[in-house]
Amino acid sequence: MRSMSCKGGSLLSTDSHYPELMPQFDLNILGCGSATPSTRHNPSCQVLNFRGQLIMIDCGEGAQAMMRRMHMNFSRISRIFISHMHGDHVFGLPGLLSTLDLHGKGGSVDVWMPADGVEIIRSITDYFCRETSFTINYHAVEGDGGLLYEDHALTVHAFPLRHRVPCYGYIFREKQGPRHLRPDMAKFYGIPVCRLNDIKAGADYVREDGTVVPNERLTLPPSPAVSYAYCSDTMFTEETARVVAGVDYLYHEATYDDSLADKARERGHSTAREAARIARMAGAGTLIIGHYSNRYTDVDILVRQAREEFPEVIAADEQLTIQLSK
Amino acid sequence: MRSMSCKGGSLLSTDSHYPELMPQFDLNILGCGSATPSTRHNPSCQVLNFRGQLIMIDCGEGAQAMMRRMHMNFSRISRIFISHMHGDHVFGLPGLLSTLDLHGKGGSVDVWMPADGVEIIRSITDYFCRETSFTINYHAVEGDGGLLYEDHALTVHAFPLRHRVPCYGYIFREKQGPRHLRPDMAKFYGIPVCRLNDIKAGADYVREDGTVVPNERLTLPPSPAVSYAYCSDTMFTEETARVVAGVDYLYHEATYDDSLADKARERGHSTAREAARIARMAGAGTLIIGHYSNRYTDVDILVRQAREEFPEVIAADEQLTIQLSK
Repeated sequence: MRSMSCKGGSLLSTDSHYPELMPQFDLNILGCGSATPSTRHNPSCQVLNFRGQLIMIDCGEGAQAMMRRMHMNFSRISRIFISHMHGDHVFGLPGLLSTLDLHGKGGSVDVWMPADGVEIIRSITDYFCRETSFTINYHAVEGDGGLLYEDHALTVHAFPLRHRVPCYGYIFREKQGPRHLRPDMAKFYGIPVCRLNDIKAGADYVREDGTVVPNERLTLPPSPAVSYAYCSDTMFTEETARVVAGVDYLYHEATYDDSLADKARERGHSTAREAARIARMAGAGTLIIGHYSNRYTDVDILVRQAREEFPEVIAADEQLTIQLSK
Repeated sequence: MRSMSCKGGSLLSTDSHYPELMPQFDLNILGCGSATPSTRHNPSCQVLNFRGQLIMIDCGEGAQAMMRRMHMNFSRISRIFISHMHGDHVFGLPGLLSTLDLHGKGGSVDVWMPADGVEIIRSITDYFCRETSFTINYHAVEGDGGLLYEDHALTVHAFPLRHRVPCYGYIFREKQGPRHLRPDMAKFYGIPVCRLNDIKAGADYVREDGTVVPNERLTLPPSPAVSYAYCSDTMFTEETARVVAGVDYLYHEATYDDSLADKARERGHSTAREAARIARMAGAGTLIIGHYSNRYTDVDILVRQAREEFPEVIAADEQLTIQLSK
């Protein structure tokens, strides 16, 4: 009996056993200003919600306050990626880790950052969070970066950017998932739970009477795997376009408009147009710009100049959530 | 000729040469929450505007963003007093100092803090603000505290509070100023600028013909000197009332309501009622409560319980400015 050979297997009776067709992969903007905070923007911070797990990218001052405002669950943060050791990308980290401790978070938090920052961040958290309720694992990013993290559903790679201090971009690539079971068909054929993984992997279903139900009748193609690259802070460099080639969503800093292109180069930053050129050269799906200089009371000029190079531009803004999908 | 004996002296021709009757002494609340930030309150930070100079007391995360929101001029900060080395009182300091540097502030900033914090704060600012445009002078507060700062118009004393870590309260005492010149009378008698200081110090004015104009006709009594004490974080202790006796304005933490009095003691905090008892025992003029636990969606219960002990209670709130006067 097939149902016996399935440990804990049973016939499905409700649709709730079936996975959602669209696994969650959202980008939340908590801060997209640069250098000093303004009344319009917070310093850099983003949170990816990848299937319920929160992944933070950069942690400028005020990140934890914005998490509260955006109703994010602190306990779901387990991975943090810091691009570089300028204060507007990292001054929120001690406060965030303290708050996780005060909330009694268990388990661990993994923090990746350029190698030169590990010692100072460790000394700060050692001082202010003497005995945390969770383990903090510091990981130094150095050299060419490379694969930093991998699980069954996600990889994270780092790559060098060009800024005034060691600085890394990060690429988050969803792995191709299994085919999606069609709840109506699975119910119709009474498929036991123990067979679901095989069928989602592409197998046909052989009924008790030996007849075969082809996989195509039971499943829909898997959701396309989505990728997201974060590039901030950096000056324009073609190497970035090469590394992020084909990415679905590209966040690229766009600190200045055309008139300040010289200043951008001098300070290791980019113009909005340069960000858009990277998107075009990389064949990205959508460009998200941010890290605005606080001289811009609105960012229309940056969006306009970017769109002259690349049409699909979203202007980052605090509390904006972008559903990453194909 | 009297006008010649006065270096640079000249007859007054407009009222604008005369000082205002009320020298500015304002308390600005930038944050009055506790521990972790909430959507209602920021962590602890206050700024005294003392005659145009900004004096910061504690510097929780988000202090600089709130300064912007309250239209404060960063360059006017020259003194910062930190009560203790818990993150919600100090995590905004590295960001603030970085921003002062980015703004090209000159001169120096003096920072007082409990001795155990100097090394870590210095190491953070050394790392993130390598070559600041201004000098940072760190001062360790230890033992019984005592007089930390004095100029012609102000003294600042520190005194120990009782908390879980070394913690200090601060008293800011305005010095008794000179008598106020009456612009109408000064104009009427044509008093040269070089005589103003003598007259404000109480001297009569001797006219060219030898007649004497008594000081009472030319001046009004000086503004009463105002004092302000900051007590956070601390558990209830009668010693505090003794030290702040007679203060005009007392800020005392009021983390909890009566029902959490045990928790207050255990955590080294106070209830609102205990804060009010300190105000009553000290004979303070006005009590300002703050450092609210983030469990309170509004602080009416804290104000009510405090007023049962002491009538003059103001509830601190972000962006509140209190003009300190008698």
